[in-house]
Amino acid sequence: MISRVLAADVPAHIGARIRVAGWVHRRRELKSVTFLVIRDRSGLVQVVLPESDVPEETVVEVEGIVIASGQAPGGAEITEPVVTPLSEPAQAPPFDLYRPNLSATLPTILDNAPVALRHPKMRAAFTIAAASVAGYRAALDELDFTEVHTPKIVGTATESGANVFGIDYFGRRAYLAQSPQFFKQSLVGVFERVYEIGSVFRAEPHDTTRHLAQYTSLDAELGFISDHRDVMAVLRHAVAGMVDCVRTRAADAVRLLGIRLPEVPPVIPEIHFVDALALVGAPPDEPDLAPAHERALSEWALAEHGSEFLFVIGYPIRKRPFYTHPDPARPEYSNSFDLLFRGVELVTGGQRLHKYSDYLAILDDTEPYRGYLDAFKYGMPPHGGFALGLERWTARLVGAPNIRQTTLFPRDLTRLSP
Amino acid sequence: MISRVLAADVPAHIGARIRVAGWVHRRRELKSVTFLVIRDRSGLVQVVLPESDVPEETVVEVEGIVIASGQAPGGAEITEPVVTPLSEPAQAPPFDLYRPNLSATLPTILDNAPVALRHPKMRAAFTIAAASVAGYRAALDELDFTEVHTPKIVGTATESGANVFGIDYFGRRAYLAQSPQFFKQSLVGVFERVYEIGSVFRAEPHDTTRHLAQYTSLDAELGFISDHRDVMAVLRHAVAGMVDCVRTRAADAVRLLGIRLPEVPPVIPEIHFVDALALVGAPPDEPDLAPAHERALSEWALAEHGSEFLFVIGYPIRKRPFYTHPDPARPEYSNSFDLLFRGVELVTGGQRLHKYSDYLAILDDTEPYRGYLDAFKYGMPPHGGFALGLERWTARLVGAPNIRQTTLFPRDLTRLSP
Repeated sequence: MISRVLAADVPAHIGARIRVAGWVHRRRELKSVTFLVIRDRSGLVQVVLPESDVPEETVVEVEGIVIASGQAPGGAEITEPVVTPLSEPAQAPPFDLYRPNLSATLPTILDNAPVALRHPKMRAAFTIAAASVAGYRAALDELDFTEVHTPKIVGTATESGANVFGIDYFGRRAYLAQSPQFFKQSLVGVFERVYEIGSVFRAEPHDTTRHLAQYTSLDAELGFISDHRDVMAVLRHAVAGMVDCVRTRAADAVRLLGIRLPEVPPVIPEIHFVDALALVGAPPDEPDLAPAHERALSEWALAEHGSEFLFVIGYPIRKRPFYTHPDPARPEYSNSFDLLFRGVELVTGGQRLHKYSDYLAILDDTEPYRGYLDAFKYGMPPHGGFALGLERWTARLVGAPNIRQTTLFPRDLTRLSP
Repeated sequence: MISRVLAADVPAHIGARIRVAGWVHRRRELKSVTFLVIRDRSGLVQVVLPESDVPEETVVEVEGIVIASGQAPGGAEITEPVVTPLSEPAQAPPFDLYRPNLSATLPTILDNAPVALRHPKMRAAFTIAAASVAGYRAALDELDFTEVHTPKIVGTATESGANVFGIDYFGRRAYLAQSPQFFKQSLVGVFERVYEIGSVFRAEPHDTTRHLAQYTSLDAELGFISDHRDVMAVLRHAVAGMVDCVRTRAADAVRLLGIRLPEVPPVIPEIHFVDALALVGAPPDEPDLAPAHERALSEWALAEHGSEFLFVIGYPIRKRPFYTHPDPARPEYSNSFDLLFRGVELVTGGQRLHKYSDYLAILDDTEPYRGYLDAFKYGMPPHGGFALGLERWTARLVGAPNIRQTTLFPRDLTRLSP
């Protein structure tokens, strides 16, 4: 059997007899001729034959001769074909996959994810997500980080008591990890620099367009820093690596979606929390930024600095997790940051406490934290890190208004399948 | 401040004033001189000073002059040092980290994982694991696979009713996914070729040296195959990529542990299940291979074919999951395989059913499988895949008798922390 040619490569075989395989993306029957558009992982190719009753989405193999054709996608099409089904005739999908856009409501799309994701524009977002993750890893590998895999089942709901899923663990109570925070800090003691790409779980009781019960967290943590600015520099490098990799490895997806990739400035502009409040006209005693503030700050960064990225630093210490390092000059603020991207908080990070005595002073009951505190008891360097939500990043990049559009099979308050 | 030099690079700076930073790995006080061995992520470096009371594991920064020294590790040491602690004096660890091997029982090591993992030989196993995962991804990226992230929370315990963890999901019953099996098959319909590296969960009621409640599964699935042999060829490519990457990216760890990496033959030898039973002298009606059989088969493959890898193919269909494709020539056997490596089953895989009608015929109640079956209803190519447990792979590679030794923070029947 002659070896398979991918759809995108067909124009390079004009005059040759080739074999392609894929899904019948579209069947158009004219008076005396039928066009089958075949879809595979690389793209589309047109096949011309006298007639065909193969339903759309059926998987077929086609052998035929490639000829040049000005009208066909890619400038070539397959003639004199022999079409062999590789499976049974497919049932008709609940929407037309061949139209330029998937015309269905979001719930219908999500209910039918296995087939909706086949739409080239749906799929493109996940090609971009995969390239983003590859770029993240490459950037951190370059900086000598070690990839780790930590437990998703934890014995105590210590990081934050709320929004945690309980598990029946061999008759005991356990919980799904909300983040790898404690583990990645401990592992700074082992590897100095670690990253993890894994699932995290939040029992979010609200139905919003930017929260899910499970998402993919790109976590990093590094030791021997001076302060949070060293962490911000690593994050900048990681985000630049993500954009670069999307540009090179997901070029077709970027083109198909017609999106513009951001420039990552060599130094991302930053603003202190106090100045940020003043800039958006919020009262100076506000403890946090509201989504509207984040949008206004992003607009300001674009207008003032020409940057789609903005660091907000120095959040009030009382609004950050207990392990946050204070700003030594103004201890009511912290050595922490958020990275805003196109109007939304994309990353949270900062410097952490690294002295054992600081943790003992801050925690009322240390027993639930014993494993975590051991890392500090036996010597930890100044360190910090960050976490970036993959699905949220992809949504901002492709302009999806709802994070469910950039999650393969989202999990939320009501959705547990497919 | 002069920039930091890593321990491994110190010998390149003889005569220069440099700064290193790390943990006090060992302090040796002689009559008139004290040696501090500093450990960082790259290795060890010796510092010579008149006296010092900095306890081991304290994090310090050292500035001094590099001189050649035949006795010192790497042939250089730091003299005239200024030692500055970066943290409080560390408490004494429950074992000596500076000894060539960690002399403690496995429970003590696991109870004290944050500090035990700092031992260079403990850490080395995870450097090898990280390189293995990088090699796996590189090999599959080369073959045009797309990386995906799928739900770890599922609505029905459909893949196998047993050994599943229940979750309280917003007042409903849900479960932790035992594998991404259904998702990766569905996604063959979208991307043709996918892989996922993620956590999977098994409520293993037994306490063994090779099972855990959570492990890292390297999953892959691909479409447009002829049969299971196409899957086996991809798996061979992936495993070869893992070994290559360990060789290049984890050379120091391999050397430190004194391990020998396996050769992956261009074609891994295979034996049919029926012949395997005969070879090990088991009755011909045995439905599966016992661990002792797997060891004997591995020995045979090494003696007969000079290979540490062996494919056993054609397992009885009744012992494989319901989605397994039968062998068309002998339908009581299946187009499935296990890959044995050094006496243990490392990978399970095979060709899957791809026709909707086959699933309808085999499942008594299709309702719990609706999302999964949708992929087949709308057209799926012949496909197959495999899953490889990272921790088990690493254990075989480094010769660890217990999988807990190659898991950062293992979870089992009794262990939920650290």
